Amino acid sequence: MSNFQTLVWRKTSRTLRLLDQRRLPNKESFLDCGTLQEVADAIKTLAVRGAPAIGVAAAYGVVIGVQEEIALNRPLTKAGFDRIIDALAATRPTAVNLFWALERMKKTGAAGLENGLSDAGLRDQLLRDQLLRDQLLQEADLIFAEDERDHHLLGEHGARLVPEKARILTHCNAGALACADYGTALGVIRAAHNAGKEIQVFADETRPLLQGSRLTAWELLQDKIPVTLICDNMAAHCMSKGMIDLVIVGADRIAANGDSANKIGTYSVALAAKAHNLPFYIAAPTSTIDFSLANGSQIPIEERDPDEVRFFGRKRTAPAAVKVYNPAFDVTPARLITGIITEKGVYEPDRLAQIESKYP
Amino acid sequence: MSNFQTLVWRKTSRTLRLLDQRRLPNKESFLDCGTLQEVADAIKTLAVRGAPAIGVAAAYGVVIGVQEEIALNRPLTKAGFDRIIDALAATRPTAVNLFWALERMKKTGAAGLENGLSDAGLRDQLLRDQLLRDQLLQEADLIFAEDERDHHLLGEHGARLVPEKARILTHCNAGALACADYGTALGVIRAAHNAGKEIQVFADETRPLLQGSRLTAWELLQDKIPVTLICDNMAAHCMSKGMIDLVIVGADRIAANGDSANKIGTYSVALAAKAHNLPFYIAAPTSTIDFSLANGSQIPIEERDPDEVRFFGRKRTAPAAVKVYNPAFDVTPARLITGIITEKGVYEPDRLAQIESKYP
Repeated sequence: MSNFQTLVWRKTSRTLRLLDQRRLPNKESFLDCGTLQEVADAIKTLAVRGAPAIGVAAAYGVVIGVQEEIALNRPLTKAGFDRIIDALAATRPTAVNLFWALERMKKTGAAGLENGLSDAGLRDQLLRDQLLRDQLLQEADLIFAEDERDHHLLGEHGARLVPEKARILTHCNAGALACADYGTALGVIRAAHNAGKEIQVFADETRPLLQGSRLTAWELLQDKIPVTLICDNMAAHCMSKGMIDLVIVGADRIAANGDSANKIGTYSVALAAKAHNLPFYIAAPTSTIDFSLANGSQIPIEERDPDEVRFFGRKRTAPAAVKVYNPAFDVTPARLITGIITEKGVYEPDRLAQIESKYP
Repeated sequence: MSNFQTLVWRKTSRTLRLLDQRRLPNKESFLDCGTLQEVADAIKTLAVRGAPAIGVAAAYGVVIGVQEEIALNRPLTKAGFDRIIDALAATRPTAVNLFWALERMKKTGAAGLENGLSDAGLRDQLLRDQLLRDQLLQEADLIFAEDERDHHLLGEHGARLVPEKARILTHCNAGALACADYGTALGVIRAAHNAGKEIQVFADETRPLLQGSRLTAWELLQDKIPVTLICDNMAAHCMSKGMIDLVIVGADRIAANGDSANKIGTYSVALAAKAHNLPFYIAAPTSTIDFSLANGSQIPIEERDPDEVRFFGRKRTAPAAVKVYNPAFDVTPARLITGIITEKGVYEPDRLAQIESKYP
């Protein structure tokens, strides 16, 4: 367990409480989302981020959306339910866990909505919708609980790959802040640390939004795991100086052939790891694998606001007139990946099909 | 010529006027240095930066140091002169142009100081020192003028390597802001642009001090050369998307075997260029070559204040307690370098010895 809570469902108020990651590390504050719009905005503006956490937040977002309709005495229709799903699906395009979680919620919702009530009274309809809401909440809670369990399993599998003494480079934040709890890449690091291994982490700061310096550094300090912060462009230099033993990062979407989309800059780290013969691992739950995509070229890559690069917080650091290219993710080809660490075990990237056949 | 002046010697006040690069791009302000300490501080704090510009600034710094002694009616001794040289040599360790320029000033000074005046009167001593100061000023002016001439020559040599239509990635600022005028990497780009070639520049922002977004983007906008700003960690992704045709960067010190130290992150770009079979050029005057070093492992690498990485301007963006590693340069091995563009022509990195034998 980590020493903080990224997402909490508050039963009495039926709201989703998020540790507001936009304000870390300077301020530990919470954001209570009570409307569909608030959940969607929290995902879009990265108050909550990280592929698994986005999935969990969206699942609760569906519950909140249905609850809003109930509160307005508006019986839920198939079209209305789809609008809730669509609003959450439109927040961010790359992380597949979002769509995976929404698909589960949609199935749960569809079963409830099938109880056709076209000629029932309003009271009966609202009772049905309350039942539906509670079923959806159970499914969201299940997604949350599975996320916790899976990341602990993933951590155990991954920790076995980590030497007794290891200096591990990571990029962005694939930590407890990116999940319901524990983390993927940082889950492996936590598990290795908790097993008594001597772990030192090198954290890339991860421009433009600094998830490494703001979140990973903060998270590891909370857990007293030794961490050294570097700029993204220092990773290859550190490798050349023999300061790194292996690399572990998360993923936002993995294609069937093992090509993996993750935070922009991951590809650069993977190239450097290859050049220095260092193991490069992806840590991600199987919900991150998109078997419908043959390879990474088909993964949609989100482009974000150019001002994320032109500004730093409120301070402009580049000329206002300069053109900017700001892709939020890149794709690391399977050939650069040593192994993909999942809750079901560690797979070579070209062996992912085994998962699909074994756990259809 | 660029549309601004990086360094100007002001004859009447005997001061060095610097375009204060710490304040770009938000403010175009000037810093007038009238004392040795002010010149040394300007170099240390990066008000003036870039290997060739540091050399030129230090040369004028020697003149200013001698002038200070004259103003105090203190006859110059060999020890006093050495202290001036040493104060400037202690500012930054990596760029060899600093030591190269100081060596030239030292030779000029030594010749003047040899006129032993131990039994002369104070008035004669001061007259000799004024003569010495003027000789030193002539040498500094010569270093400045050679810098201008050499970078135009370098630009012409380099421009021939650039295709008619080219998308060029550069890192940090190796522009007119890094020299007396015109620039090294950006000198090549200027020359190609002025020759009517269709040039697009991709500028790495260059963390932690953002010389790419603050300086290169500003400088290219001044000269109306198309530029797109990216974060350092996006360069490899841009290459994988076929958005880059070649890379040109500067250098702070080149060893005899062609290994080249340049701004941190250059090595990472070179690895990515190699992986995508893109030409990777270093552009630097021959004064950047240190034939006394057999290879790059002997180049001293400056480490700077951890708060450059923890803070962004005045805003802290990482936990105060986090450990930081902040090397200011890295070394790109010769095997990753396609060619070294100098004022004397373009050399394959393993052919640098030709320069030493031809121009001893």
